[in-house]
Amino acid sequence: MNDVIAAIATPAGEGALGIVRLSGPDVPAIAARFLRGPLRPRQAALAIVQDGAQPVERAMAVYYPGPETYTGEDLLELTAHGSPYLLSRILELAVRSGARLAEPGEFTRRAYLNGRMDLAQAEAVALLIRARTETSARAAFDQLEGKLSRAVEELRLKILGVLAVVEASLDHPDDDLPAFRPETEAEALSALAQAARRLAATHRRGRLAAEGARVSIVGRPNTGKSSLLNALVGRDRAIVSPEAGTTRDTLEEAADLGGMRAVLVDTAGLRDEGEAGPVEREGMRRARAQLSAADLAVVVLDRSVDFSGEDRRILDEAAAGGRPVIVALNKSDLPKRHHREDALEVSALSGEGIEALAARMRLELAAASGAPEGETLVVSVRHRVALERAAEALDEAARRTAEAELASVHAREALARLGEIVGKTAPEEVLREIFSRFCIGK
Amino acid sequence: MNDVIAAIATPAGEGALGIVRLSGPDVPAIAARFLRGPLRPRQAALAIVQDGAQPVERAMAVYYPGPETYTGEDLLELTAHGSPYLLSRILELAVRSGARLAEPGEFTRRAYLNGRMDLAQAEAVALLIRARTETSARAAFDQLEGKLSRAVEELRLKILGVLAVVEASLDHPDDDLPAFRPETEAEALSALAQAARRLAATHRRGRLAAEGARVSIVGRPNTGKSSLLNALVGRDRAIVSPEAGTTRDTLEEAADLGGMRAVLVDTAGLRDEGEAGPVEREGMRRARAQLSAADLAVVVLDRSVDFSGEDRRILDEAAAGGRPVIVALNKSDLPKRHHREDALEVSALSGEGIEALAARMRLELAAASGAPEGETLVVSVRHRVALERAAEALDEAARRTAEAELASVHAREALARLGEIVGKTAPEEVLREIFSRFCIGK
Repeated sequence: MNDVIAAIATPAGEGALGIVRLSGPDVPAIAARFLRGPLRPRQAALAIVQDGAQPVERAMAVYYPGPETYTGEDLLELTAHGSPYLLSRILELAVRSGARLAEPGEFTRRAYLNGRMDLAQAEAVALLIRARTETSARAAFDQLEGKLSRAVEELRLKILGVLAVVEASLDHPDDDLPAFRPETEAEALSALAQAARRLAATHRRGRLAAEGARVSIVGRPNTGKSSLLNALVGRDRAIVSPEAGTTRDTLEEAADLGGMRAVLVDTAGLRDEGEAGPVEREGMRRARAQLSAADLAVVVLDRSVDFSGEDRRILDEAAAGGRPVIVALNKSDLPKRHHREDALEVSALSGEGIEALAARMRLELAAASGAPEGETLVVSVRHRVALERAAEALDEAARRTAEAELASVHAREALARLGEIVGKTAPEEVLREIFSRFCIGK
Repeated sequence: MNDVIAAIATPAGEGALGIVRLSGPDVPAIAARFLRGPLRPRQAALAIVQDGAQPVERAMAVYYPGPETYTGEDLLELTAHGSPYLLSRILELAVRSGARLAEPGEFTRRAYLNGRMDLAQAEAVALLIRARTETSARAAFDQLEGKLSRAVEELRLKILGVLAVVEASLDHPDDDLPAFRPETEAEALSALAQAARRLAATHRRGRLAAEGARVSIVGRPNTGKSSLLNALVGRDRAIVSPEAGTTRDTLEEAADLGGMRAVLVDTAGLRDEGEAGPVEREGMRRARAQLSAADLAVVVLDRSVDFSGEDRRILDEAAAGGRPVIVALNKSDLPKRHHREDALEVSALSGEGIEALAARMRLELAAASGAPEGETLVVSVRHRVALERAAEALDEAARRTAEAELASVHAREALARLGEIVGKTAPEEVLREIFSRFCIGK
């Protein structure tokens, strides 16, 4: 990290403004070679970008002297006109002046290596940039602000507390130390394993927040599943016709259910396979495959026809594996032939009840994720796995407290696993993998 | 302009950083409703973007108090993570706090209306953002820095000088004024008309710089025109085969000839129409149409076969209308059957001579544009037309100096025309048309 890195930090394409940023130990020296104008700490000042004696652009320069900066190094941000040509030109001048092109995520990598943020926070930067909904942006922002890191650090400190007692009994078996009681420490370690597992379990919700939930819309043919998808998404995505079996393949559409991203999947109508031809049978097979991967099922019944054994079978199939199910009694615009207490009455045609259905979907998904609003969320699989392994190690340590040495080994293993999350013990491959997913300039 | 406008100023899409900007009289008051943190003039400071009590993002805020700002008003730039969702969210919060969405070019329009730049400079902002080459970026930058405006202002001042003498003779015919000699003033006005025409004539070069030149590559079938296009562009754009007549439609490809943008047009081979089928004849018709619109023709001869009457006719056709012509003697890798002093020997196959050909194309295009490097360039048609009309009015004034009143009317007409360029006399429709071509946020 003894060189200066440079990159265009704004998205590609034409815009009003664009930013070129430089970070490293020699930033003012390098800037002096292609920039005319004073650099005053944290002051925005106009500077002329020059190619030799030729002025190329008038940019707003803000110089942040290290180490109290994003990267922990001297940092320079040049805001110029958002011309892709001009921004490349400025970048090229920076490189000719001694900087080198930054790799993806290298600014944030330096921030991490210089202790400006831990690894979980660094990962949150990429999450935040990719956030699509209020829920995912909030989860990423919380992680960036250190919410997850603090939860992990708290666990680590508690483990260290137990470990101190366990290891003191090893180092000074004959000293006059506070009594070491294996049962008490075992209880403490089990409680910590539980806490780690609880945190890991928020990953379901975290994943839903970041990636969105999968919602299968299922039902008999011609109950109006495609119309319902269109009504929920608010535009004509699926082809709708009064003819049964119009939808043969599955159709996916992203929707924002009041700040929670969901992928709605419209599927072929399900009925007795014996009555269906080969194309329809394949459609039903796909519908069932989608259903088995869904976080939530919306079963659509047609209230203008009688409830049937097929409807019953579909409801059972949808609820299999403990998946939450919402029953939508469609065609509330037509005369009613059956009623269900547990169903929401909707009309995909008139839009009646659609808002209520979307709200219910959001509630069910929030409940299914098993963590109340505002709680720390684990978004990344990497973090979940580390927490689960830490919990296993803590359980093992709890079982071994009678043999203090073994208990210590397992508790230290748990510490190492938790350390991976915040990056205290993350190997180089993990860092490489994490930062390669970043965009250039971040 | 008594409201605050807001927009995302960076290009759409994900990136490391993105900017939301606000301009108007109440910026600090509006910012206080969704931003927590101190705003110190021209100081970069971290601020928390808040939705009510909920923190949404940590952004770098730079506050520029008016009137010494881009827009001439209070201006606030918030640099946040380059997440499209997050930037829209911040924009939405600004709007909920009392700002309104800016229209395309509205920031620059305010800069113009507040006298921070003249109209020619405002137009240069859009040119600079769209610049693709060194030449076009430089022309736009010069215009933004006021080079054209100064040239126009100089003309205006000289006209005003003559006008003062002419009008003094009207207002005070009997006073003891410096002698008014119609011939002297006529000469001065004609010289100014000439100067306006010279400036207007730079438009050819200005257009070439901004839009790029059109270069037709013509020649008999199978001389290697498509291979030459590929060699100049540096990748396989045109389909090449040893079979004569492979290119039937015309193919265009943009190329950067050492800082000058050009559109190279590969065309069908030209030969006796009697020998060609209908498809080939249509190809030849299109080749000729392209040639007639070209700023430069590159005639490709095959030096491994004899020079023919058809080659002669193509050379004549290419040079028609005074268009510059470069002769490329292709296939320098094969034995030579004819030689020409005026030709560049090239091999599209080996790449030999291609650099020299590109350099020559650039030189010819620079020469064809009729203005030496470094001179003020008129890039926009609007400016050229205004200059030409000013020249006509000046000529008319020169012819009428014997009737001082008429001379004065025409000289004032010339002033008004020149005033349109810098915006002293531009009607609202012109402003609307100009700023509608801007991107939002500029």
